[in-house]
Amino acid sequence: MNFQVPSAMTAYSIGKGVSLNDAEELEAALHHIGETRYHSLHPFHKLLHGGKLNKGQVQAWALNRYFYQSTIPLKDAMVISRFRDRATRIEWRHRIEDHDGDADSEGGIDRWLKLTEGLGLDSAYVESTEGILPATRFAVEAYVHFCRDKSPLEAIASSLTELFAPNLHEERISGMLQHYDFVNPDIMSYFKRRLAQAPRDANFALAYVREHAMTPEQREQVCNALIFKTNVLWVQLDALYHAYVEGHIPPGAFVPERN
Amino acid sequence: MNFQVPSAMTAYSIGKGVSLNDAEELEAALHHIGETRYHSLHPFHKLLHGGKLNKGQVQAWALNRYFYQSTIPLKDAMVISRFRDRATRIEWRHRIEDHDGDADSEGGIDRWLKLTEGLGLDSAYVESTEGILPATRFAVEAYVHFCRDKSPLEAIASSLTELFAPNLHEERISGMLQHYDFVNPDIMSYFKRRLAQAPRDANFALAYVREHAMTPEQREQVCNALIFKTNVLWVQLDALYHAYVEGHIPPGAFVPERN
Repeated sequence: MNFQVPSAMTAYSIGKGVSLNDAEELEAALHHIGETRYHSLHPFHKLLHGGKLNKGQVQAWALNRYFYQSTIPLKDAMVISRFRDRATRIEWRHRIEDHDGDADSEGGIDRWLKLTEGLGLDSAYVESTEGILPATRFAVEAYVHFCRDKSPLEAIASSLTELFAPNLHEERISGMLQHYDFVNPDIMSYFKRRLAQAPRDANFALAYVREHAMTPEQREQVCNALIFKTNVLWVQLDALYHAYVEGHIPPGAFVPERN
Repeated sequence: MNFQVPSAMTAYSIGKGVSLNDAEELEAALHHIGETRYHSLHPFHKLLHGGKLNKGQVQAWALNRYFYQSTIPLKDAMVISRFRDRATRIEWRHRIEDHDGDADSEGGIDRWLKLTEGLGLDSAYVESTEGILPATRFAVEAYVHFCRDKSPLEAIASSLTELFAPNLHEERISGMLQHYDFVNPDIMSYFKRRLAQAPRDANFALAYVREHAMTPEQREQVCNALIFKTNVLWVQLDALYHAYVEGHIPPGAFVPERN
């Protein structure tokens, strides 16, 4: 394998002069992107997991992230809508179920509402999404639009951040339980469940792009789709940091009670 | 006129319990939104106009704002595409010309490139948009999507920030010329030209929504479209402030040379 760490990665692409010649080189490039761009590296997460935030700041994070979580089934339905191939649709469908649950069983969105409720937020307010940061909304909606407007291959590739999620979730569960007296295992059930779900989903998507990205150009598209997605996640934390750590809450957004 | 200043404006709407009963009340509400939400109020603009930024920070602003400027003709073409009514299409069309110019005459985008070039940025780099903040991209693209996905009335209403632009541009021209030795009247020609263009455009859009928003619900939609647009502008300045004033430049984005 001849994969060279790209030296000219921009905000949107792995940069010029990178030629990924086979699936091994593609996978190495994807891991490099994860190691340098995944939001586990963001300062906001260091504060969150290290117990450095107050309850209002953790509320702001959970409130905003609810919009991301509750948009995932729409995103996944969009991905499904791009495939005439029945087998891929069938494979992807359980993702919607994972998040939406069923008439008699809870899904990821219910588990996220357990978290926001456990943090003292009113569920009707959370579900209204009226208090989220505009940057959260723009970034999350960009993800849905990406899956509609780009190629089906890129739509699948943009889910590949899940390759890196389990480590982050492990760190989050232990860090938040250790540091915050307002967090208990029950309200953290979302992340616990994702520890099993994310690797299965990520493995399918990885195998898919390894098989279907057959030219250097397509491998580059796959990498840039992952970079796009890391931006979707990073922008959300930048906005939280700016509003709730540095104190520049934009007009009309959630204002924590003093605590 | 019974317009009451809305007390429950959220990040996205004028809030519950507001009923706008005629065009006068609508216009009063629009002015209230401008006075409380337009980005002339943003701390980044106070720094920019007050001479408190260094050249690299002004470059970052002009570089990012180029993406907004160069997207406006796409947005306006999208607005035109929503109207079967020929008269509205004809009325709107000059906006594209204002920004794109013609084979033998410059337009707003050329004038913006004069600004970025005058600030020492390479035009090929600016036009590539590879160095802009992801939040800029998400916010600006959200504006195009809004004009595609919402009603034609809302698409027009989202342009109403131009009601408030001339004051801001006046302040910008005099403030930047006074405070920065790297700014001269020639590179500020974009704003000077907009002093004449924006009021004409804003007056048409205002007359349009006054006439075509015929129910309280439609007047509310018009207000919320303007609030949406103020968010598009505000998010861009929040992202600039976070990255270039507070120093959290996201991966791959423009890094100013020391100056």
